[in-house]
Amino acid sequence: MQKDTIAAIITAPGEAGVAIVRLSGSDALAIADRVIRCSTPPPSQRKANSFLHGYVKSAEEQSDLDEVIVLVYKGPHSYTREDVVEFQGHGGSTSAKRILRTLLNAGARLAEPGEFTKRAFLSGRIDLLQAEAVMDLIRSHSDRAANAAIEQLEGRLSNSFNIIYDKLVTIAADLEATLDFGEDELPAATFETIYGQLVEIQNLLQKLLASWDEGHLLREGALVVISGSPNVGKSTMLNALLGSERAIVTHLAGTTRDILEEQIVLDGIPVRLVDTAGLRNTECNIEQEGIRRAQQKIEYADLNLVVVDGSTKLSDDEQRHIEEQDPEKSIIVINKYDMGNLISQEDFPAYRSISCSLKTQRGLEELRRAIIDKLGVNSGPTPHASISERHRLIIQTAMQWMDEVITIIKSNNEELTAMAAESVRDILEELGKITGRNYHTELLDNIFGRFCVGK
Amino acid sequence: MQKDTIAAIITAPGEAGVAIVRLSGSDALAIADRVIRCSTPPPSQRKANSFLHGYVKSAEEQSDLDEVIVLVYKGPHSYTREDVVEFQGHGGSTSAKRILRTLLNAGARLAEPGEFTKRAFLSGRIDLLQAEAVMDLIRSHSDRAANAAIEQLEGRLSNSFNIIYDKLVTIAADLEATLDFGEDELPAATFETIYGQLVEIQNLLQKLLASWDEGHLLREGALVVISGSPNVGKSTMLNALLGSERAIVTHLAGTTRDILEEQIVLDGIPVRLVDTAGLRNTECNIEQEGIRRAQQKIEYADLNLVVVDGSTKLSDDEQRHIEEQDPEKSIIVINKYDMGNLISQEDFPAYRSISCSLKTQRGLEELRRAIIDKLGVNSGPTPHASISERHRLIIQTAMQWMDEVITIIKSNNEELTAMAAESVRDILEELGKITGRNYHTELLDNIFGRFCVGK
Repeated sequence: MQKDTIAAIITAPGEAGVAIVRLSGSDALAIADRVIRCSTPPPSQRKANSFLHGYVKSAEEQSDLDEVIVLVYKGPHSYTREDVVEFQGHGGSTSAKRILRTLLNAGARLAEPGEFTKRAFLSGRIDLLQAEAVMDLIRSHSDRAANAAIEQLEGRLSNSFNIIYDKLVTIAADLEATLDFGEDELPAATFETIYGQLVEIQNLLQKLLASWDEGHLLREGALVVISGSPNVGKSTMLNALLGSERAIVTHLAGTTRDILEEQIVLDGIPVRLVDTAGLRNTECNIEQEGIRRAQQKIEYADLNLVVVDGSTKLSDDEQRHIEEQDPEKSIIVINKYDMGNLISQEDFPAYRSISCSLKTQRGLEELRRAIIDKLGVNSGPTPHASISERHRLIIQTAMQWMDEVITIIKSNNEELTAMAAESVRDILEELGKITGRNYHTELLDNIFGRFCVGK
Repeated sequence: MQKDTIAAIITAPGEAGVAIVRLSGSDALAIADRVIRCSTPPPSQRKANSFLHGYVKSAEEQSDLDEVIVLVYKGPHSYTREDVVEFQGHGGSTSAKRILRTLLNAGARLAEPGEFTKRAFLSGRIDLLQAEAVMDLIRSHSDRAANAAIEQLEGRLSNSFNIIYDKLVTIAADLEATLDFGEDELPAATFETIYGQLVEIQNLLQKLLASWDEGHLLREGALVVISGSPNVGKSTMLNALLGSERAIVTHLAGTTRDILEEQIVLDGIPVRLVDTAGLRNTECNIEQEGIRRAQQKIEYADLNLVVVDGSTKLSDDEQRHIEEQDPEKSIIVINKYDMGNLISQEDFPAYRSISCSLKTQRGLEELRRAIIDKLGVNSGPTPHASISERHRLIIQTAMQWMDEVITIIKSNNEELTAMAAESVRDILEELGKITGRNYHTELLDNIFGRFCVGK
């Protein structure tokens, strides 16, 4: 375990009242004493969980860099379980950087991304699921996602896995115990009991696996792409859904050159709305690049809103574009239906379609509902903590091995018991990666490398 | 004075480890108790300057919104001199907003921009110069600017003004005292002494006035515009100065449609570098708009870097553009001089010019030096706190009135003494607006309205 003292800015950059620099490690208090000027006792002389007012001195000690509030935590009662000192200075782009630089000069090392939380995990204060919940919470874009993350942070998902893990430990022990019996001595009920227990665990894992869909939407947000020919009203629709004037809407064909991505929250689910370049043929390099990127986005999208102009006939390009779309993942938006209706909903029997006038916002509410519908969002009560992609892959592997074990146990073939016991141990090993009972450097690098610096 | 309890997020928005919500006012502790769930005594039972670990409850109290550290300040030992409670929750776009919403539901009011600092001023903890320094520090973009702001925050500029103010109070009293003497009783030395004191004050004010130039550059940054025809290398120069690849550089004429503004720090001075659309004639609406905005920027700029292609002849448009520029505020950058030199420095005898190859970065260092030079930056030691535009206008008015007073005193015309005394009182009234000895609502609205919310 690393024992050096690390430092990082832990608030977001930008103009604001306050920014915080955190220092954690065995030298935290000594380093804080070195950089602080105050009229009262220095940080190391303070009680835990108290704060003081002071100034961070410049390296030459001739002037002050910032006026700060200094928070003193003493291990193990801190985020990392180490001694921690936090400096609340002024926000903006200068002060926090200057304080950080001073701490690095005074003996601290710049923290790696996620290193504070990694230390919280390595010290045993939280498990990996809780560590991941920290990042989920920070990245959450809706109440629903934040609620799920807080539940995970408070240990609800950890409990589910711990229950499964403990049950499997018992099964492994039971199986291993049977190996010590003679062939005839084996109590007949054991295999049956174990079989029942395995099926129960399978069900629990299956239930956790089913939480991935919602977890995925909450964590990454649904990707909804807007496509269609130029001037059919794509940007107008984006703005209508956003309720603001973010995209510049003009009457020049080919105005939307770059991918515009916006976030909205529909029914508690974060939705990433992407406006794409028009799908027309063009000789302009910049536009071609935009169209290429748009097509890429459509492939990855959870939903494609194809906008057409209801007051003119469909072009061959549009006809082709629509035919290429998956009806399950598309909504045809027939815009400008109040300006004549050369296109109607009957023209797209295979697709969900909506007639609207985006300019006057008629049909907008229906469109919102259709989007929520198509995304398959469960609008029920607050969701429980749900698994991430990383957990899903682990559970899937564990489920395959569970199938094997169950087949063996069902076969009642005692000669294979040793193999089954070994497989259960493998499953434990695999599931242990979820909460971090078992971890290796690569796994931790993978998880904490995706954190931001200062967490 | 307002006494209600206000709340705001005081850290910048964005993905980060931590965000803070501040609560200030007479109900701060009671409101904090209402929203916090903790296993130890609640905020109101805590000692001042201590913090506790807890959870912010949801409105229905059925679940937790966030895990927080709660800081307890008791007035007058706080930023505002009121009771203050700060909630350190998770960063990102959700948690702090949810905590704030909960506090507003529990009885707090959303703070106006700058309202915490306004309360610090109204309670007498800091004066207006120090309040303004808070914003200067947050907005500072260089060490030099931050140092100047910290000095101002610690009261150095306030001291200078207080000394002047106190001297003027004495003069006013002396002048008023002379009114009580009979004509013949007047001690001859008094007017002479007062004259000397007035000249001394004039010099002090003049010195403060002279600090405006540097203060202006430190606060607003120098505005340096890059202009020239398409494809002469404007974006390449911006990138070379930035040392990064921010602007998309292509070979298509008219790529830079929007004004691109970037910040660099040259010799401690923040410089706002603005890349403009090319100056060619175009029929494209979007480009025309870009060119119009570029010309507007050039008018306001502190410096214009006119880039020309040294390997081709100057066009008539370019010739005209250069002739329109003020030689004091322009540098001609002759780019691509390694690809042939059809243009040389001798072609612009009235202008400072530099031959360079921006692609290979030859001449870049000379260009940097020329920019610093032209901006007239004093590269001396750390600057002292310097006055802002608001202070300059007040001092200028005061100086005019000082001239009148000095003329009267010099004339030795005792009949005008009453008028002089009155003028000195007016000057005091005027200068009092700088530190806030005298203030009115409009002045405060003006100053604190420019703050960000949460300061």
